[in-house]
Amino acid sequence: MNYKMISYIIGWILKFEALFLLLPMLVGIVYKEHNNAAIYLMTALICFGLGSLLTYIGNTRSTLYTREGFVSVSLGWIVLSFFGALPFVLSGDIPSLTDALFETISGFTTTGASILSNVEALSKANLFWRSFTHWIGGMGVFVFVMAILPMMGGSTMNLMKAESPGPSVGKFVPRVKDTAKILYSIYIVITIAQIIILLICKMSLFDALTTTFGTVGTGGFGIKNDSLAGYSPAIQNVVTTFMILSGINYSAYFCLLMKDIKGAFSIEEVRVYLLIILASVGIITMNTLQLFEGSFGTSLRHAFFQVGSIITTTGFATTDFDQWPQLSKTILVILMFIGACAGSTGGGIKVSRITLLFKTIKKELAILNHPRLVKKIKADGHTIPHEVIRSTNVFIAVYFIVYFISLLLISIDNFDFTTNFTAIAATLNNIGPGLEMVGPTCNFSIYSTFSKYVLMFDMLAGRLELFPMLILLHPSCWKRQ
Amino acid sequence: MNYKMISYIIGWILKFEALFLLLPMLVGIVYKEHNNAAIYLMTALICFGLGSLLTYIGNTRSTLYTREGFVSVSLGWIVLSFFGALPFVLSGDIPSLTDALFETISGFTTTGASILSNVEALSKANLFWRSFTHWIGGMGVFVFVMAILPMMGGSTMNLMKAESPGPSVGKFVPRVKDTAKILYSIYIVITIAQIIILLICKMSLFDALTTTFGTVGTGGFGIKNDSLAGYSPAIQNVVTTFMILSGINYSAYFCLLMKDIKGAFSIEEVRVYLLIILASVGIITMNTLQLFEGSFGTSLRHAFFQVGSIITTTGFATTDFDQWPQLSKTILVILMFIGACAGSTGGGIKVSRITLLFKTIKKELAILNHPRLVKKIKADGHTIPHEVIRSTNVFIAVYFIVYFISLLLISIDNFDFTTNFTAIAATLNNIGPGLEMVGPTCNFSIYSTFSKYVLMFDMLAGRLELFPMLILLHPSCWKRQ
Repeated sequence: MNYKMISYIIGWILKFEALFLLLPMLVGIVYKEHNNAAIYLMTALICFGLGSLLTYIGNTRSTLYTREGFVSVSLGWIVLSFFGALPFVLSGDIPSLTDALFETISGFTTTGASILSNVEALSKANLFWRSFTHWIGGMGVFVFVMAILPMMGGSTMNLMKAESPGPSVGKFVPRVKDTAKILYSIYIVITIAQIIILLICKMSLFDALTTTFGTVGTGGFGIKNDSLAGYSPAIQNVVTTFMILSGINYSAYFCLLMKDIKGAFSIEEVRVYLLIILASVGIITMNTLQLFEGSFGTSLRHAFFQVGSIITTTGFATTDFDQWPQLSKTILVILMFIGACAGSTGGGIKVSRITLLFKTIKKELAILNHPRLVKKIKADGHTIPHEVIRSTNVFIAVYFIVYFISLLLISIDNFDFTTNFTAIAATLNNIGPGLEMVGPTCNFSIYSTFSKYVLMFDMLAGRLELFPMLILLHPSCWKRQ
Repeated sequence: MNYKMISYIIGWILKFEALFLLLPMLVGIVYKEHNNAAIYLMTALICFGLGSLLTYIGNTRSTLYTREGFVSVSLGWIVLSFFGALPFVLSGDIPSLTDALFETISGFTTTGASILSNVEALSKANLFWRSFTHWIGGMGVFVFVMAILPMMGGSTMNLMKAESPGPSVGKFVPRVKDTAKILYSIYIVITIAQIIILLICKMSLFDALTTTFGTVGTGGFGIKNDSLAGYSPAIQNVVTTFMILSGINYSAYFCLLMKDIKGAFSIEEVRVYLLIILASVGIITMNTLQLFEGSFGTSLRHAFFQVGSIITTTGFATTDFDQWPQLSKTILVILMFIGACAGSTGGGIKVSRITLLFKTIKKELAILNHPRLVKKIKADGHTIPHEVIRSTNVFIAVYFIVYFISLLLISIDNFDFTTNFTAIAATLNNIGPGLEMVGPTCNFSIYSTFSKYVLMFDMLAGRLELFPMLILLHPSCWKRQ
């Protein structure tokens, strides 16, 4: 392991975190929360100091291998979360370090699972920071660093590979730095668009900012105890739209940017994603009609919101879907696993992987029917390389093993099966709420400290697509080369 | 599709079913249930007549391809279950054809899930037949036919491939017919041994026979409403032992038969299987200690029984494990998925597949650490062929897709998530009882007719390892060659 390299990278991550921490400091000043402003300034200074030390100790001359890339990203996210949690503890809003860490990891990983029963009691600066972590984590902090910094001599592709969601990293342009810049530009444009539209819908600036961070980052931290239930239908529909837009593969937006409109609409993953949404909304609207006194419009609005929220792994809620009939709830649970498109800010297994699985099955059945058949699996007109199919299969296997081990570990707390099962689904897929005791009107404070750490691991493993976190557990990872 | 070939094979299956049906007829005569005896005789005659017709129409001269092998086996099992269900309907014990079919498929697939709330109300002949279906389905009816009949010119390996559990078919000896004979010989020896030991433990002959069929076939139909809870601890321990023995890969017994004792004990799958059992029993014994008023012996006995019953996918119960703490219940749910050894009579994903998955993950992590590493996955000293690893990954993917689609379909009935989730786990893995409303003291009669057919499909798909059932749904399967 090349520790100097990792030290250098994490140093830069901390320096950028220092920069990010200045924003909630400003919020603190605006809202006259001087104590909080001071806390954020102090945390920023600590991050900057430590970051400078680490970049000074580290060096950047050697090549960045896959292993170093993965370890840098996972350690980077842990360090980021640790220092991001400090203001919550220091301000006294979340006195327990475990809880603060849970909340911050939930923020950065865009999960949105909370340990707070009364969100509205938080100070404005803390509320802002809590939502802003979604925005930072959504597109990824390493992608941000790469977009800005002329960093390493070696390939930075391995950092991007570890942080970007999906079975294959879409490089829009030959240089990683330029790809990162394009991604963040699209991200910022979508963010600004939503803020403006929400302001037009008469949302206050603070609410519009924090809600947008939670939407485009597919995070889901609400700033109200009832999430988005209290806002007007217009605002809810805007959020629905932007959640669904944020779950789309960003290469579709890149196509639009390149004026390749046909290209944007012909991406198979995006079409399957939209089809799943429409089918789910259709069934749920009919299934929940009676709950909304037969009002088709209300039922449709809530169905669209919840389906958009869950498949994009955002986790906002406009209604307590734990009260829905089992068919609707089961659809939501299945959507938790499917997740959004690869190359979006959403989590879950990803639509492209699910599509690939169905194609693999179709191929297997075709081979059984015609043993001498040579069939290649295709997507968007291209043959999918064997390596992608293999890694998808391995991903699914690892995914379920992590799932069941986590389920076993948190079952020690003796909560019911549905609660535990959906708690893992909600964290490993970076959604937020589950069902029963972790449903949309409840929170994760019920779990023991041990279980909270299991869930934190799952949130990070889900966001970083398993391997960067798992490699930390592999003994040979820590040996010097 | 070579329909003549399939007709010939299914014809023979029916003729053998006719033979099997004579046994419950005898039981009817012994217990003076003359009406039932007549019903079984009549059903046997129908099976024999129809079977003779089908073998007369069909022919055996062409080669049996994988497709024909798979379709023969899945259709064969459906036909077998249909005619096996007739006596239940005709005798009036289970008047609904759907329910009778559910019970019979549950029997043949060695699931043991029942729609009956009062088993003890059944006639002796029906009780016997119900348990005897476990014995027939345990080792497999096609294996039986192959062991006895000098059947086809072509390779019968494709029939065995479709019916035998596990990622690869273990051929002990070059000829399929001889392998089938050896398998059934071991099966019969184990069966006789258990019957004798149960008789020594003062069980009545009828109870010993039916309990043994349910044990060695890893089925789980009890003949009492409280399953095995009412029997003496000695009898319970005997059943525990034989359940665990029946979940072991039969190649271990073949090694013993060949006096290769070292070989028998060095099979990795068997060692992992026993290790999982010991670890689970250890945790559950401690976790449930308070329920049995601190009696370590009682707690250990029940833990051993339930763990053995669930991992081997038998499904007998000595206690209502739905009342256990969540940790113990979650262990049982995970054991449901793991299942027994490949090449045993048990169901589930199989220990060898799970072991292979863990090895694949270990390999992936090793490659991340040392990208130029060339690492082969090994088991029992041999390199595992790429094809086996690939098909295991595909199996897992298909498995979970079938799982979630089934879960969605039965959720229409609006039962709670835990009930639905464990109902699928209990049927797709051929176990029997699940948790909550399908727990060990409950039954599957709560579900609608539609859901019952979904669960029947899952039982067959689980027993035949998915593909023989899935191929029936593939349109090109039904085209003539």
